[in-house]
Amino acid sequence: MKIDLNSDMAEGFGAYRMAEDETLLDIVSSANLACGFHAGDAVIMDRTVRMAKERGVAVGAHIGFPDIMGFGRRLMQVDPKEMEKYAIYQLGALDGICRAAGAKMAHASFHGALGNLIAVDQPMADAMARAVRAFDKTLFVSSAPGTAIARAAEAEGLRVFTKFLADRAYDAKGLLVSRKLPGSMVKDADAVRERVARLLTDGTVVAITGEVLRMKVDSILIHSDTAGAVELARTIRAAIEAAGGTIAPFPQTLG
Amino acid sequence: MKIDLNSDMAEGFGAYRMAEDETLLDIVSSANLACGFHAGDAVIMDRTVRMAKERGVAVGAHIGFPDIMGFGRRLMQVDPKEMEKYAIYQLGALDGICRAAGAKMAHASFHGALGNLIAVDQPMADAMARAVRAFDKTLFVSSAPGTAIARAAEAEGLRVFTKFLADRAYDAKGLLVSRKLPGSMVKDADAVRERVARLLTDGTVVAITGEVLRMKVDSILIHSDTAGAVELARTIRAAIEAAGGTIAPFPQTLG
Amino acid sequence: MKIDLNSDMAEGFGAYRMAEDETLLDIVSSANLACGFHAGDAVIMDRTVRMAKERGVAVGAHIGFPDIMGFGRRLMQVDPKEMEKYAIYQLGALDGICRAAGAKMAHASFHGALGNLIAVDQPMADAMARAVRAFDKTLFVSSAPGTAIARAAEAEGLRVFTKFLADRAYDAKGLLVSRKLPGSMVKDADAVRERVARLLTDGTVVAITGEVLRMKVDSILIHSDTAGAVELARTIRAAIEAAGGTIAPFPQTLG
Amino acid sequence: MKIDLNSDMAEGFGAYRMAEDETLLDIVSSANLACGFHAGDAVIMDRTVRMAKERGVAVGAHIGFPDIMGFGRRLMQVDPKEMEKYAIYQLGALDGICRAAGAKMAHASFHGALGNLIAVDQPMADAMARAVRAFDKTLFVSSAPGTAIARAAEAEGLRVFTKFLADRAYDAKGLLVSRKLPGSMVKDADAVRERVARLLTDGTVVAITGEVLRMKVDSILIHSDTAGAVELARTIRAAIEAAGGTIAPFPQTLG
Repeated sequence: MKIDLNSDMAEGFGAYRMAEDETLLDIVSSANLACGFHAGDAVIMDRTVRMAKERGVAVGAHIGFPDIMGFGRRLMQVDPKEMEKYAIYQLGALDGICRAAGAKMAHASFHGALGNLIAVDQPMADAMARAVRAFDKTLFVSSAPGTAIARAAEAEGLRVFTKFLADRAYDAKGLLVSRKLPGSMVKDADAVRERVARLLTDGTVVAITGEVLRMKVDSILIHSDTAGAVELARTIRAAIEAAGGTIAPFPQTLG
Repeated sequence: MKIDLNSDMAEGFGAYRMAEDETLLDIVSSANLACGFHAGDAVIMDRTVRMAKERGVAVGAHIGFPDIMGFGRRLMQVDPKEMEKYAIYQLGALDGICRAAGAKMAHASFHGALGNLIAVDQPMADAMARAVRAFDKTLFVSSAPGTAIARAAEAEGLRVFTKFLADRAYDAKGLLVSRKLPGSMVKDADAVRERVARLLTDGTVVAITGEVLRMKVDSILIHSDTAGAVELARTIRAAIEAAGGTIAPFPQTLG
Repeated sequence: MKIDLNSDMAEGFGAYRMAEDETLLDIVSSANLACGFHAGDAVIMDRTVRMAKERGVAVGAHIGFPDIMGFGRRLMQVDPKEMEKYAIYQLGALDGICRAAGAKMAHASFHGALGNLIAVDQPMADAMARAVRAFDKTLFVSSAPGTAIARAAEAEGLRVFTKFLADRAYDAKGLLVSRKLPGSMVKDADAVRERVARLLTDGTVVAITGEVLRMKVDSILIHSDTAGAVELARTIRAAIEAAGGTIAPFPQTLG
Repeated sequence: MKIDLNSDMAEGFGAYRMAEDETLLDIVSSANLACGFHAGDAVIMDRTVRMAKERGVAVGAHIGFPDIMGFGRRLMQVDPKEMEKYAIYQLGALDGICRAAGAKMAHASFHGALGNLIAVDQPMADAMARAVRAFDKTLFVSSAPGTAIARAAEAEGLRVFTKFLADRAYDAKGLLVSRKLPGSMVKDADAVRERVARLLTDGTVVAITGEVLRMKVDSILIHSDTAGAVELARTIRAAIEAAGGTIAPFPQTLG
């Protein structure tokens, strides 16, 4: 049983650092790199791409709103036609960095408020899928299962790789419980370990309301910018290996 | 006799406009597009790429310092290794926009204070040439003849296309007379016309101090952001045609 | 009968220009200056403050979202507590420029998407009123009549000066007809002239649906960034004078 | 014997953090706050001003080049007349934040590449002194002794407070030894302690070449963004107290 371990990276800017990218790159098998709009700059992107390449970690663009001051976490009413061009710009920028480093960009992922928006907003999701396809139709699109962007990507003929958030509660429909609600975060390491084991062996998740849900995912997402991120990443990696799983970049399994 | 007519473009930002790009695109045969660092944004870049493609105008990246407030005209002491990554980022961003529009990026050019710097500063010129070669070694590099960047590009195995500034005086060594000196700008339309005619028919330029200089150039540059830019562009185009020349994108002649 | 003529200004950025500020400053009696968040920079703000001071034109801060690429016209989901600090920062910045130029800042106005938001969103309107009061409780707040920000300003003990848009249609409730609807713009110069005359002599406006509305306003707003802005400003100024009115900065009338 | 302990602060941006400001504020007696040009944003500035006020720590503006990506550490060839306006803008912005928080801004300091420049470049130093005087002539200007900015400030009638860098070597002329040279950093805690004690008791510093220099300073500067900053701050504070000195904000001593 192979599964991908995925994390957000390159989220510093200039002299600022956000997460322990180098340490995390030894644990994960794929990484979403900020591309200069909500975080990340060319120097940081280049360094991260080269570290990822050395370790065989797959890289993709983490596309966001143009808002460094808000770290891409604030909804902006950008016209989808304009955001489509912003997405292509970000894809191109990271692809340029990859090319110059002799690496290959594998996927597109969507950050923060943009990611939340295109889980449910079909016009913006369609614009993002059009952007990826127009830029490079061989790229994967990263998404939780059942979202507007997953539908849009499939409609454009793009391959989707789905992700599971081991430290977040799901509701009975298989959607993430809002961070604002109690119990939305699974903070106990044992609980996280058990969730990963269950997902890998049974292909199921227990919803916050108790239902057992089938969930088919290609990747487990690790948040890099929370306290204890590295610890949690190691916990999840160990849980996967304990359950007999192997961590491998998603393009190896899905490509 | 074929020659290229080249101009800077896509120098707006958001709601701001800088020059009459659409009109100029009917006159020139190649364009250097700002890539979001000193000017330009993804929406403007996309619009300009598509207008250029329709007209058969060759496009390239106009790489600049990260300084929109200063329009890239202020020298910044950026480390060459960092500027190399900024250049790759800009090349990638425009290339992404081109790819999505079904166009092909043909060259790299350097804007404002960065352009002035790499005419004389060999370490930064080397960094810029390395950036272009690492990104795509088939790209042309645009430069005045005899500069540090021309030498660096050749050392990296890149093709250079040289440009002549019809409205600027040259000194006895064939270098541009600084804008701060009297007589540096050739403002009279007849004089511009005559300079273009002489360049095309004799391959020579008369220096500000009277010497007749041989000058081999592939392109004539038109400043887009000065008053009367369109007028001057038409004057130069007419002068070329009157001298029996044909305007053609440089990749057709040099490719 | 005295009335203020008001316009947005200092909306350039670096090398970019937006409107004919200098010409408009000869026509209007008060100006809202962009403060570097959605437009404007320190150099442009300073130049505009000095030109306004020479002409006896009152100046105030035109507060906006932090989004130069979107010119402050895109809604951003900024937390009101954070936007409150952004507003204070903008007020302080312009006040600094005014102080150094020996001028006095008279008011606060709100630009684009932020202005639209606080016409109806009470929590954000409250935050903006708190920002103005915390910074300087003698400042006026500019608003259309009947908005959330007008209520918030009054609740904070701030003085409001209300504005009329001569080139925009109003509905039966006295609210602006959305720009997206037909007839929202009054484009005919004669019609604009007549509306101004009626407002000054009768204190009424004819709604798009025919009702005659009483409207008490302190200022007539002129958009600076539309084609024909200067022309329209002259038309309105002439209409005011023809109706026997005098143009005077609002602090003279209301102070 | 009273002396001020000073540190740079508010150097985060949006979600980014730079130093342990809250901890340092318990140790120092004055702080230079970034104002949004090279670091800092309105929310961070406000939080820092309020924490400083609670602790009786004096605050001032840390003025820098407009370059967040470079953290203000890269020289930019900004025209002094333009930089003068940028400085006024930054002073005004922080002053606004202070006013709204019921605090008083006490001084101006200059960050990174701008600080280095105005130690030696008289025209830019003059522009900075003009900016401070035009904004508020009661503000102090922070500087090392003997710099161009110290001369400019005095020429403008401004009060200067001088600072000593306890962890940096000085040459025989009393100027800082460049960071690029060996021995420029005093890394040993005992040595730092001894230097502080000597300065307080004898008013002297031993140069890197052995000379004993008289040095009259009002403040000891602590770098906040280096590893071990808090530790070093505590070491210096303890050394001052051990030498019988008292830490007090410079306006108390000099005002």
